[in-house]
Amino acid sequence: MPTQLQYAISGEITPEMKAVANHEKVDEQWLCQEIAQGRIVIPKNTNHHFEPRAIGAGLTTKINANLGTSEKHCNLKEELEKMYIAVKHGADAIMDLSTGGDLKKILQTILKTSPVMVGTVPIYSVATRLLTDEKNVAQLDPEELFREIEFQAEAGVDFMTLHCGVTRSTVSFMQKDERVCGIVSRGGAIIKRWMAENNAENPLYEQYGRILDICEKYDVTISLGDGLRPGAGADATDRGQIAELLVLGELVDRARKRGVQVMVEGPGHMPFDQIETNMRLMKRVCHEAPFYVLGPLTTDIAPGYDHITGAIGGTVAAIHGADFLCYVTPAEHLCLPNAGDVRNGVIASKIAAHSADLVNKIPGVAEKDFSMSKARRDLDWETMYNQALDPEMARKRKKESESHDEDHCSMCGNLCAVKNDKETATINY
Amino acid sequence: MPTQLQYAISGEITPEMKAVANHEKVDEQWLCQEIAQGRIVIPKNTNHHFEPRAIGAGLTTKINANLGTSEKHCNLKEELEKMYIAVKHGADAIMDLSTGGDLKKILQTILKTSPVMVGTVPIYSVATRLLTDEKNVAQLDPEELFREIEFQAEAGVDFMTLHCGVTRSTVSFMQKDERVCGIVSRGGAIIKRWMAENNAENPLYEQYGRILDICEKYDVTISLGDGLRPGAGADATDRGQIAELLVLGELVDRARKRGVQVMVEGPGHMPFDQIETNMRLMKRVCHEAPFYVLGPLTTDIAPGYDHITGAIGGTVAAIHGADFLCYVTPAEHLCLPNAGDVRNGVIASKIAAHSADLVNKIPGVAEKDFSMSKARRDLDWETMYNQALDPEMARKRKKESESHDEDHCSMCGNLCAVKNDKETATINY
Repeated sequence: MPTQLQYAISGEITPEMKAVANHEKVDEQWLCQEIAQGRIVIPKNTNHHFEPRAIGAGLTTKINANLGTSEKHCNLKEELEKMYIAVKHGADAIMDLSTGGDLKKILQTILKTSPVMVGTVPIYSVATRLLTDEKNVAQLDPEELFREIEFQAEAGVDFMTLHCGVTRSTVSFMQKDERVCGIVSRGGAIIKRWMAENNAENPLYEQYGRILDICEKYDVTISLGDGLRPGAGADATDRGQIAELLVLGELVDRARKRGVQVMVEGPGHMPFDQIETNMRLMKRVCHEAPFYVLGPLTTDIAPGYDHITGAIGGTVAAIHGADFLCYVTPAEHLCLPNAGDVRNGVIASKIAAHSADLVNKIPGVAEKDFSMSKARRDLDWETMYNQALDPEMARKRKKESESHDEDHCSMCGNLCAVKNDKETATINY
Repeated sequence: MPTQLQYAISGEITPEMKAVANHEKVDEQWLCQEIAQGRIVIPKNTNHHFEPRAIGAGLTTKINANLGTSEKHCNLKEELEKMYIAVKHGADAIMDLSTGGDLKKILQTILKTSPVMVGTVPIYSVATRLLTDEKNVAQLDPEELFREIEFQAEAGVDFMTLHCGVTRSTVSFMQKDERVCGIVSRGGAIIKRWMAENNAENPLYEQYGRILDICEKYDVTISLGDGLRPGAGADATDRGQIAELLVLGELVDRARKRGVQVMVEGPGHMPFDQIETNMRLMKRVCHEAPFYVLGPLTTDIAPGYDHITGAIGGTVAAIHGADFLCYVTPAEHLCLPNAGDVRNGVIASKIAAHSADLVNKIPGVAEKDFSMSKARRDLDWETMYNQALDPEMARKRKKESESHDEDHCSMCGNLCAVKNDKETATINY
C-alpha cells in the first residue's frame, strides 16, 4: 500500500487528505501538492485507525503530549488517564515514551485507545530491556533495535523519533565546541555511548535504508531526532547542533526520494533572539520539512514553570517555521509529570500555538478571539466560557468568586470598565 | 527638596542613585546621566523609606504586582499576605488598587510595611467613595480628585497612574475606529463617562500643571495611564490607542521640564507581531521614557491562564523597549487573584523579564543560567534549587517524586542522558 507521500506524488487525493482538508478548512488540491513536496505530513500508520491530522506549513500549529511509564513510576491506568486529559485539552498527538513495565502491552493498549496519532522512540524500549537485564546501553545489539522498529511499525505507531544524525562526525563537532551541558537527549546519549564503546558508526545512520524499508511498508512518518540539541541556553546554535542538522537535511532528502514521510526535531534550550534564526536555518537546510520543536525554553532557571518558558519559545518558533510543538510540563527537569502537569503543559502549548497561528493568519483562527472579545464587551459569560481554551477552568474561577452570579467580576465590581463604557454616550469632538 | 530628576540634572549623585547603581552593578555617573535624560526613573517618594529600585533602559526589567481589596472581597490581612508573597518571589513594586473597605487605612498600612515601591491609581479611591454614596462616577468632583492625589502624595506613594491622555480628542479617534471591546481601563472608562455627561474636558489633562505641582513636591513619579489601551487583540494599535500615546508623549516633555519623573503605560491585548512595533513607536514618541506594560496578552482566549499569555507578550515587549512589566495572574478577566495567583503571576513575569534581560545582555543576568546549566551537568541538585526562580517549588517537586534521594529524576531514571554522557569517552573522528 503506498504512503500518503506516494499517493500525493501521483496526484491521488486519499480519504486521509480529504479528512485533513475538511478539518483545516483548506483546499484538497493544495494540500495534496504540499504533501507531495514534503512540506506537510499526515502521520498515520496503515495499521492504525483514527481521525488523521496533518502537520506542516499553512496549517494550524499542532501539539504533542509525551506520556509513558518510567522505571520509578509505572501505572498504565494513570498514563491512559493522562492521555485522556491531554486529548481533551487539545493535544493533536501523544508519544508513548514508556520505560517501565510491560512495554509491548502498554504500547498496544495506547494504540488501541488513542483517538490521536501516536509516536514513540523505539530505542527507549531496547535500552530499557538492557537495563532490566543489568546490561550497559553500549551492549545494545543493532539487530534488536531494527527488530523493535519493525515490531512497533507493524503494531501501528504513526511516527517514530530516530536519532540518525548523531554520528561520529557530528559528535566530534560538538566535542570541540566545549558545551556546558553536553548531551541531554536520552537517545542521543545512548547512541554516542554505543559509538564510543564499540568504536563504530551509528547504525541508524549507517543502515538508514533499512529504516526506510520499514517505514515505507507501514507509512510510518520518521521524526529525525535531534540528539545533539542544546540543553542549556549557553549551548544553543553551537557547531554540534548545526552539524547534526545538516545531516538531518540529507536524510530528509533520502526519505522523500523513497516515498517516506519525514519531519525534523529541533531544540531545546535557546535564548529568545536565536529562535527565529534557528527556524529559518532549519527550514532552509531541511528543504522545508515539517519542524517539531521541544520548547524552545528561553531561560534555564525556571524549573517548576517550564511550561511557561516553553510557551514563550514555542510562540516565536511557531511564528517563524515550527509546525509541531512538543509540550513542556511544569515537571520538566524535576520528575515525571502527573495529570495536572499534563493539563497545564497542553494548555500552555495551545496558547503558544494559537498565538502564533493568529500572527500567521491561519484560516479560522482569529474568529475565536473575535468571538471572545465580543462576549467580553457584552458581559456574556457563557460565550466567554465556551470560547476559552479551558472552559472548565474559566467557569470554575468565576463561579467560585464572590461575583459568581453577577455580570461583572470580583476584581472590578461596579467599577467595571466595560459596564461603565457601555452606559456612556458618544463624545462629540 | 529636589526630585531625583532635578538632582540628576544638576549632576548630583544621591544616596538613592548610589543604592541603585550598586544593586544593578552599573556606573553611578552613567546612571545619573540617564536619569537626567529621563530614560531612567527612581520612583521613591520623599516621605517613603525603603531600598530604592530604578526603572528604565539598560537596567534589569522590573516587575509590578497589583494588590488590593475590592468591593466584594475585602480583607487587609489577606492583601498584606499577598504583598509578602509577591515580594518574596521577586516583585520590584506593588500597586495598591483597593476599592473596598477603609481605603486610607489600607494604603497607610501598605506604605508602612512594603519593602518595595508602592503605586496607586488615585481615581479608584474617589470613584469608590462615589459608588458607596450611591452616586454615579459622572458626579466626580475634580477638586476631590486633586485632593486625593495630594493626600496620597503626602502619605508617601511612589508612583501614581493618572489617565491624563483620555481627552475628548483621543476618545473621538477611538470612537471613529469602531472597537470590538471599547474601553477596558477602569480609570479610562470613568474619565470618558465624566467627560460625556459633563460635556467637559478631562481635568487631569486640563489641569496637568496642578499634578506636576504635587508630584514635584513629594517626588512622585507619574505613570501616565493608557486609558484607551486595547482590550482585544482586534483593537490593538488602533487610532484611539495611538492618539492617546501622542498626547502622553507631550505630557512626558512637560513633566521633565518641570523636574518631575515620569513613565508611560502601555497595552494590553495585542497579537505577537504588533508588539515590537508598539514598543519602538512608544519609545520614539515619548522620547525614551521608561515604559510600563500590562501584558501584552498575545491571545484573548486563555482566561484562567493569562499569566502565560502575559509572559509571552511581556518577553517580546521587554526585548524591544518595555522596562517594567505589570504582572498578569491566572485570575485575570475572572476574579480577584488569591495568594496562589499572585505567586504564579509574579513568577511568570519574572520568567518574561529574565528571558528578555538575557537577550538584552544586562550585566550579571546570564550568570544565573550558566550556573544552573553547570549544576545540571553535574547533577548537583542543591545548586539547581538555589539557582531556580522558585527554589521551594523546584525542591518540592523533586523531593515528592520517587527519585527524591537519587541523582537522576523520576522521568528518565537510569536512562538519564546527562549521566550516560558523563560516563562516555570522547569519540575520535
